[in-house]
Amino acid sequence: MKRYERHADVLAQLIHSGALRPGDRMPSVRETSRTRGISPSTVFAAYYLLEAQGLIHARPRSGYYVSGARPAAPGGERPAEPLPSQPASTSTGVAISDLVFEVLGQTRDSTLVPLGSAFPGPELFPLERLARCLSGGMRRLDPASIVQSLPPGDERLRQQIALRYGLHGTAVDVEEILITNGAMEALNLCLEAVTQPGDVVVVESPTFYAALQALERLNLQALEIATHPRDGIDLAALAEALARQPPGQPVKACWLMPSFQNPLGSLMPEAKKRELVALLARYGVPLIEDDVYGELHYGPQRPVPAKAFDTQGLVMHCSSFSKNLAPGYRVGWVAAGRYATAVQRLKLMTTLSAATPSQLALSEYLAQGGYDRHLRQLRRGLAEQQAIALDAVAAHFPPGTRVSRPEGGYFLWVELPPAVNALDVHRHALQHGISLAPGQLFSADRRFAHCVRINYGHPAQGRLLPALECVGRLATALLKKELPALSG
Amino acid sequence: MKRYERHADVLAQLIHSGALRPGDRMPSVRETSRTRGISPSTVFAAYYLLEAQGLIHARPRSGYYVSGARPAAPGGERPAEPLPSQPASTSTGVAISDLVFEVLGQTRDSTLVPLGSAFPGPELFPLERLARCLSGGMRRLDPASIVQSLPPGDERLRQQIALRYGLHGTAVDVEEILITNGAMEALNLCLEAVTQPGDVVVVESPTFYAALQALERLNLQALEIATHPRDGIDLAALAEALARQPPGQPVKACWLMPSFQNPLGSLMPEAKKRELVALLARYGVPLIEDDVYGELHYGPQRPVPAKAFDTQGLVMHCSSFSKNLAPGYRVGWVAAGRYATAVQRLKLMTTLSAATPSQLALSEYLAQGGYDRHLRQLRRGLAEQQAIALDAVAAHFPPGTRVSRPEGGYFLWVELPPAVNALDVHRHALQHGISLAPGQLFSADRRFAHCVRINYGHPAQGRLLPALECVGRLATALLKKELPALSG
Repeated sequence: MKRYERHADVLAQLIHSGALRPGDRMPSVRETSRTRGISPSTVFAAYYLLEAQGLIHARPRSGYYVSGARPAAPGGERPAEPLPSQPASTSTGVAISDLVFEVLGQTRDSTLVPLGSAFPGPELFPLERLARCLSGGMRRLDPASIVQSLPPGDERLRQQIALRYGLHGTAVDVEEILITNGAMEALNLCLEAVTQPGDVVVVESPTFYAALQALERLNLQALEIATHPRDGIDLAALAEALARQPPGQPVKACWLMPSFQNPLGSLMPEAKKRELVALLARYGVPLIEDDVYGELHYGPQRPVPAKAFDTQGLVMHCSSFSKNLAPGYRVGWVAAGRYATAVQRLKLMTTLSAATPSQLALSEYLAQGGYDRHLRQLRRGLAEQQAIALDAVAAHFPPGTRVSRPEGGYFLWVELPPAVNALDVHRHALQHGISLAPGQLFSADRRFAHCVRINYGHPAQGRLLPALECVGRLATALLKKELPALSG
Repeated sequence: MKRYERHADVLAQLIHSGALRPGDRMPSVRETSRTRGISPSTVFAAYYLLEAQGLIHARPRSGYYVSGARPAAPGGERPAEPLPSQPASTSTGVAISDLVFEVLGQTRDSTLVPLGSAFPGPELFPLERLARCLSGGMRRLDPASIVQSLPPGDERLRQQIALRYGLHGTAVDVEEILITNGAMEALNLCLEAVTQPGDVVVVESPTFYAALQALERLNLQALEIATHPRDGIDLAALAEALARQPPGQPVKACWLMPSFQNPLGSLMPEAKKRELVALLARYGVPLIEDDVYGELHYGPQRPVPAKAFDTQGLVMHCSSFSKNLAPGYRVGWVAAGRYATAVQRLKLMTTLSAATPSQLALSEYLAQGGYDRHLRQLRRGLAEQQAIALDAVAAHFPPGTRVSRPEGGYFLWVELPPAVNALDVHRHALQHGISLAPGQLFSADRRFAHCVRINYGHPAQGRLLPALECVGRLATALLKKELPALSG
């Protein structure tokens, strides 16, 4: 037996024994090569062989997966993906905050199984090493600099961020980068920099509720555009909307998540991102690109941000370390293109600067190396959790349920049968110690009333599977009217 | 000799030897009692004796000072205090940001003598102990809490802050306190919570440029009210302005600094604060109270905030640790009364939460004790620097100069002869390696064109005295037209 045949044999046994189950992602080539001490080409050869044997299959940009049906859903079928959304064609004022705060307030109890949370589990992050970097960074701090730590932020940290842009093929100047209090501040400052009250802003449908809240806070009009759960915003619909707007009421900005959109998990292919940027450039419309999940890809390559295709300085790329390295440190950034000075001034006027200790901790961590190792482990963990979650939805949710299959991040978008009200499911689930993010939060007109966003990024204590079983039971009971509606 | 006579004798010798100079503040009674191991009544007795001998004198709410004339100014007289301001009587739009950013941009060079800085010198802060508290706090962190560190912020820190309110005689509930990214964010959120674009907001005249920038950012109208350099805003003028506003355009908020106003240094007496709060309550107008310098009093007692007299929940009290303990940590807070929920929601929507490491460092530091010892040392240092700065202005600034004598903080407000343009002084000073804050920054209509704000809170390297000599020379030369005007 050749070396690749031996390796394929070992894997085939794992599959037959059930150690690797249908739907599981195969170990990455790079990882295997490193851990087994064999060359990448040997690993590839083994995978080609297993593929030829029908044991595994490749998914584009995502890697290899064990073949074979998932456990059948009650109806006997694997749930379909949600259909593209069909939002209203006109812009609308936003009044969603009260509902968002009501739901968030109900889900803050730390004993709940946090399926409604926006963050992954804390056990996924290298918090101890970060704390050591924090101490080390502070020891080396020049006292004079702590008084002068004004925007754009710590020079070394900005260099590290620019370096990562470069490694992923996007050229961003260190001077363009502004450190913010998380991506949330970056996104809000960008929106404020390019709009006046009453302006129209394009968002995806469904869209992250914080984007809707930002629009509401600044008295902006939301124009929601149809979005596909797999490849993102519908460019034809966007082009039509841009052309259709009356001259006195043009679109002033787009706030989009091209990679692993929240809540859909959709990923725009590179060509589509390029087309998006070109389309917006034709209308001179700035793109506020929320890319906080970009590093959480399950496939081998980090998706290129839309920013990479920007030649006009119209793309404001926002990201942070909060979702993939250092929650609670509140360090995000924006590379705001031609708006960099305007955004920096807004930052100076509202929160002055980001916290020096947090900035130093991250620049120290990044300089020491090991970020990519941590990210590989995090992505693997999230991909494994996704398989568990998809299985559970297939097995326990009512017939007619549709569910997204994102290639990154840690959210599922679950479309229940239309007769089920997600706020009812949410309120019953709370009584069973489980939080959810009901679909009503993700649209100005609350149209996703039968959808829920499920966070599968909390591996702790094996609580994910029983919690999803419970939510599935509740949804089924509500569908059969065996449980009372609780929504007002 | 009795014990108090012996102590008085020691002090008299220090005065005669010049170790304690005219204008110097005498060591506080409490401090002396503690460090010398004698009772407070003995110290008082010694001070009464020295006062009877004409060697020292008391200043209300401030302590004892060495008597005798300061060095005579060139004109032979000690500079007078500035007169109360006389702002325009109508509200006005604000367009000051470009000038502010131009001047701030010119003064960021860290080699300049930072007379134009808004911060005291870094050597005044316990940065090493804070860094140890940071490490200690992070070691004790429950990982689960770092993901959930949402507003209103760290519970222990808010308890410590509530405790300090209580110690100073102001009852504030822990639940009312929201941790923010410095006072700057707190102030901006408060303003946003109670205004809509076009609303009228009362500010002092002169006022801190960041308040003007906040008004400009939110498209608000500034209504500047006459302010006395010693005891603050003119309540009769404020009452008249409130009564005079047309019904369709009422005042929607006051943004004031009742204690050690920036730039004047004025301190409203308690009775006047009480009257202010009652006046605003009659009109239902919220007070945004900027109290970032309240802890930097030279007198024995911390000035009570206006918040202490609020019975209607109309006072939003904003402060931070940035000016008196932990610059760069970006930890401030607001106790926003009836607006607490609205402000907290705005925080959630814009920057989510304050950085966890910074919050932990401060709660750890405050729990360990020693904050008041640090503050006593800081106040003593600043008071000494003020004496140096006042002497230098008296000795070197042109005849006709007026200067404030604040009882706390670290700013002098210097009114030059009207023929001198402060932007000229500023630009010439830059060429001599000195930054200044020209008066034009402190009013919507740039009326303080012959004033400068001088930061005397940077004790490093004895650079204060020669820098002030230089600024005085430049102002004199500009007055005599021996130097060219540089202002465009």
